Amino acid sequence: METDFAALTPTVVAELRAIVGDAHVIYGDPDRLIDYGHDEVHGAEHAHLPEAVVKPDGAAEIAAIMRLAARERIPVTPRGAGSGLSGGAVPVCGGIVLSLERMNRILEIDLANLVAVVEPGVITNDISEAVRQHGLFYAGYPMSTETCFIGGNVAENAGGGRAIKYGVTGRYVLGLEVVLPTGEIVELGGKRLKDVTGYNLLQLMIGSEGTLGIFTKIILRLLPQPQARTVLLVPFTDARTAIAAVPRVIAEGRVIPAAVEFMDRFSIQTAYEFIGEKPPHPRMAALLLFELDGFQESEVAAQADAIADLCLRASALDVYLGDTPASAKKMWRPRQKLAEALNTHWAIQSAEDLVVPPARIPDLLAELEPFGERYNALAPCFGHAADGNLHVHILKKPEMPLAVWQAQEGGMLTALYKIVVGLGGAITGEHGIGAKRAGYLPLAQSPELIALQRRVKAAFDPMGILNPGKIFPKL
Amino acid sequence: METDFAALTPTVVAELRAIVGDAHVIYGDPDRLIDYGHDEVHGAEHAHLPEAVVKPDGAAEIAAIMRLAARERIPVTPRGAGSGLSGGAVPVCGGIVLSLERMNRILEIDLANLVAVVEPGVITNDISEAVRQHGLFYAGYPMSTETCFIGGNVAENAGGGRAIKYGVTGRYVLGLEVVLPTGEIVELGGKRLKDVTGYNLLQLMIGSEGTLGIFTKIILRLLPQPQARTVLLVPFTDARTAIAAVPRVIAEGRVIPAAVEFMDRFSIQTAYEFIGEKPPHPRMAALLLFELDGFQESEVAAQADAIADLCLRASALDVYLGDTPASAKKMWRPRQKLAEALNTHWAIQSAEDLVVPPARIPDLLAELEPFGERYNALAPCFGHAADGNLHVHILKKPEMPLAVWQAQEGGMLTALYKIVVGLGGAITGEHGIGAKRAGYLPLAQSPELIALQRRVKAAFDPMGILNPGKIFPKL
Repeated sequence: METDFAALTPTVVAELRAIVGDAHVIYGDPDRLIDYGHDEVHGAEHAHLPEAVVKPDGAAEIAAIMRLAARERIPVTPRGAGSGLSGGAVPVCGGIVLSLERMNRILEIDLANLVAVVEPGVITNDISEAVRQHGLFYAGYPMSTETCFIGGNVAENAGGGRAIKYGVTGRYVLGLEVVLPTGEIVELGGKRLKDVTGYNLLQLMIGSEGTLGIFTKIILRLLPQPQARTVLLVPFTDARTAIAAVPRVIAEGRVIPAAVEFMDRFSIQTAYEFIGEKPPHPRMAALLLFELDGFQESEVAAQADAIADLCLRASALDVYLGDTPASAKKMWRPRQKLAEALNTHWAIQSAEDLVVPPARIPDLLAELEPFGERYNALAPCFGHAADGNLHVHILKKPEMPLAVWQAQEGGMLTALYKIVVGLGGAITGEHGIGAKRAGYLPLAQSPELIALQRRVKAAFDPMGILNPGKIFPKL
Repeated sequence: METDFAALTPTVVAELRAIVGDAHVIYGDPDRLIDYGHDEVHGAEHAHLPEAVVKPDGAAEIAAIMRLAARERIPVTPRGAGSGLSGGAVPVCGGIVLSLERMNRILEIDLANLVAVVEPGVITNDISEAVRQHGLFYAGYPMSTETCFIGGNVAENAGGGRAIKYGVTGRYVLGLEVVLPTGEIVELGGKRLKDVTGYNLLQLMIGSEGTLGIFTKIILRLLPQPQARTVLLVPFTDARTAIAAVPRVIAEGRVIPAAVEFMDRFSIQTAYEFIGEKPPHPRMAALLLFELDGFQESEVAAQADAIADLCLRASALDVYLGDTPASAKKMWRPRQKLAEALNTHWAIQSAEDLVVPPARIPDLLAELEPFGERYNALAPCFGHAADGNLHVHILKKPEMPLAVWQAQEGGMLTALYKIVVGLGGAITGEHGIGAKRAGYLPLAQSPELIALQRRVKAAFDPMGILNPGKIFPKL
C-alpha cells in the first residue's frame, strides 16, 4: 500500500487551509517543515520532511482532514511533542503531519468522579501540576514528563519511572474520543471505572502508535495525592549485586515501591559529570534508587527502614535517605539528566528499550558485555529495574569510522533483539516499534501474529493512510 | 452469517472423537448435554442445547477442532464453569460446546518473576490458595471465585469486589496462549511487566467473551500477600446517606480501600434472613462494607480509624470492626450469599450489572424508584459502590402473571439501559453483553462503533464460527 500514495498538490493544500485556517498550515517552507520531520531518535536517516504540516483544532477539523486524505490517498502522520524515541511521529512516507499542538486545553478536572478530561496536546507534567492543587495525583510518569504531550503518552502507552507500583499510561485512560482513519468520530469508554460493553477497543487504541486513530479527548483517572514520599539512593560495588537486591526487596520486603531505578558504572559516571557533582560514595559502581510513597509518614518511614535493611543485607555499600522534597529531588537528578548527558557526549548511538522477565535481568547484563565487545561498542544500561525494563544506549566509540558503524548497525540490533527474545523478553518495553524497529518485528512475533495485526489495522484503516511505515515491516 | 451454519453430522462427530478421544465427546445424550446448554442467567428462554460437547486437552486439540469447524461451518462455543451472567457460554446457534474443564492445571508458580502460569479451567480461588502458600496474592476477586474458572474471568474481564484498589482481571493478565478461530496458535504478551511490541491484542482478547479466540494458557501477575486486613461494616438509615459517604471516604480519607460494597434495605433483609442472622443494627436500612489491606497492621488500623471517623461524620449509625479473619468473614457473608438468596426466593428476575460515573450513583438510585413503580417490579440494588457498579436485580412480584412480565421485559430493560446511558454509564460493568444484552448494544454504542467492532471480529474470525450470537445484535 505504501507505494501507492499520491503527492500533495496545491489544490489539496488549499482545501487543508479551508479546513484549519491559513495560519495553521505550513507548506513550501522547508525551514519550518524541518522541525516536524524528526523526533528524538538519533541519526539523520530516521528523519523525513513532511510535504505539509496542519494544526487542526477539534475533532471535526481532524475528521475533515482524514476524509480529504482518504479521497486523495495522502498519508497522515499524527504528531504530539515530537519527544518520541522510535520515529513514531516521523512522516516516513511523506504527506501530511497532523500536529496536535493547538489542542492543549485541560477541559475539566472532575473532583466528584476523580477524572480529568484533557486534549492530546497538553504537556503531561501540566496535568500533574493542575490536579496536585486539588490534592490529586496523575500517576503517569514518563521521564520526559516536562516536555511530552499526553496524547503521545497514550499513543505509545508510555511507561516510565513509577510503573512497578502504578502501571503504565493505559491504566489511567478511562475514555477517548477518537477520529478514525475513515473520518468517523467514536467515543471509547467514559468516566467509568468498569465497562465491558463490547470489545476493549480503548486498550487496543492505547499504544497503537497513531496508526488506528487520532485522539481528540482523553479521560484520565486520578488518584488521591500520596502525602508522604521518600527516596533511597543505594550504592553498590557492581551491577550484578545491585540487580540481585531488587527481587529480594519486592518479595521479602513486602513493599511495592513507587519506583526502582538502576544505573550502571558508566551511566553513573556520565550523569554525575554532566551535572557537575561527585557521586556520593567513592566505591559506587552501580546504584539503585527507590521511591516510596503512601498516605502516612509513618507507613513510608517503616517501608524505607525495611528496604534499607534488606539492601544492606544484600551487600549495599550504604543507604542515603532523601526524606525532604529537596533531598529527594537531588537524588533523582542524575537519573533524570542521564539521557541528556549521553546525548550530549555521544552523537552516534542507538537508544534501546529492552524488557525481560524481571528475574532475567542478570542474564541480560551478562550478555551485554560480550555483545559490546563483539561490536566494539559501549553499551551502558540503566532504567526501571523492577519492571525488567532496561535502557541500553549503544554508543559508537569516537575511533570507529561512521561507515563501519552504519554497516554493522542492522546486524547489531538484530543480535541484541535476539538476546532479549531468547530471554523471554520483548524488543521494546515503552518506546514503541515506530519506524525504527518496524523491520525487526519478525524477530519478536510470529508470522501469524503479524498477519493478524495487519488485518486489525485494515479493519480500522482500509486505505492504509494513517501513519504508514510504522510497526509493520515492509511487505 | 449466523443462518448459514451447518448441522453436526455423525461423520463430523467421529472426527471430533478422533481428535479428543471417545470419552471426551458428548453426543446424542440430551440428559448430559443439558448441563452445557445454560449458564447462570435466569429463564429457560436463555438456554440452548448444544449438538455436541467436546472436552479437549491442549492447544493442538483445540486448533484441530477449530480447523474442522471452519471446514464444516459449525459454530463453536467455548465454555468455562458456566457461572456467567450474560449467556456468553450458551450455544445459541447450536453446534459444538468446547468445554475447558479438563484443562485445569496450575502449570507453574514462578516465584522469581512473581507470575503464575495456569490453564483456563482452573477455579479462580484455587489459584488464590495456591499462591497464598508462597506469601503471594492473586488480586482478581469475582464474587463467584469459589466456582468460576480463570478462563471465564479472562474472557469476561471479570471485575468483582476489589476492583477499586486492584483493578479488574485484565490488569493481572500478562500473557495468553490463544487458539484463533482459524486454528492458528499465537502467543500474546509473556512474563513481562511492560511490552509495547505491536498492538495490544492481549487486552483486546481479554473481555472479548470467547468470540475472538480460545485461551489455552494464562500468565497471571502476582503481588506480595498483604499482611494486614480489616473489614468495617457500617450501617446507615437510608441508601442515599450511605452512598454519599463513599466519595468522601475516597477523597478526604486519602485511602483507597480494597473493597467498598453497598447493600440497600431489601438486599440486607433478604441476605440476613437467608443466612438466619439478625442485622447488627435495628435501624440499618443500608450498609457499606469496607475492606482495607496493607503490609503493616498499624497502617491498616490508621486507615480504619480514618474511615470510621469519616463515616460517623457522614451520619453512619455505628461502625463495626472486623479485625480478625473470623469476624471479617462473618461481615462479608451476607454480601457473598446475596445473589444466592435472591435466586432462591425470586425465580423470575433479570440480574443487571449497571455502571455509572461514581458520582452519579445517587441519580441512579433516584431513577430506580419510579422505574420499579412503572413496571410494578422490585428493583433491589447492591454492589461495588466505589466503582459506580451496582447490581440491580429486577424481580417479578408473585402476583404478576408471567405473560405480563414477559411482554414487558424488553421494554423494561430498554428503559433501564437508557437511564444508565443517560447518566454517562454503561449497560454492563463486569458481566458482559453475551447473548442476553446483544440486542441492546445499539442503546449504548453508535452504529459507527458497532460497525468497527464487527470489522475487528471479522479480522479474527472471517467465517464467524466462534461463539456466534454474542455481543452483536442480529443484522
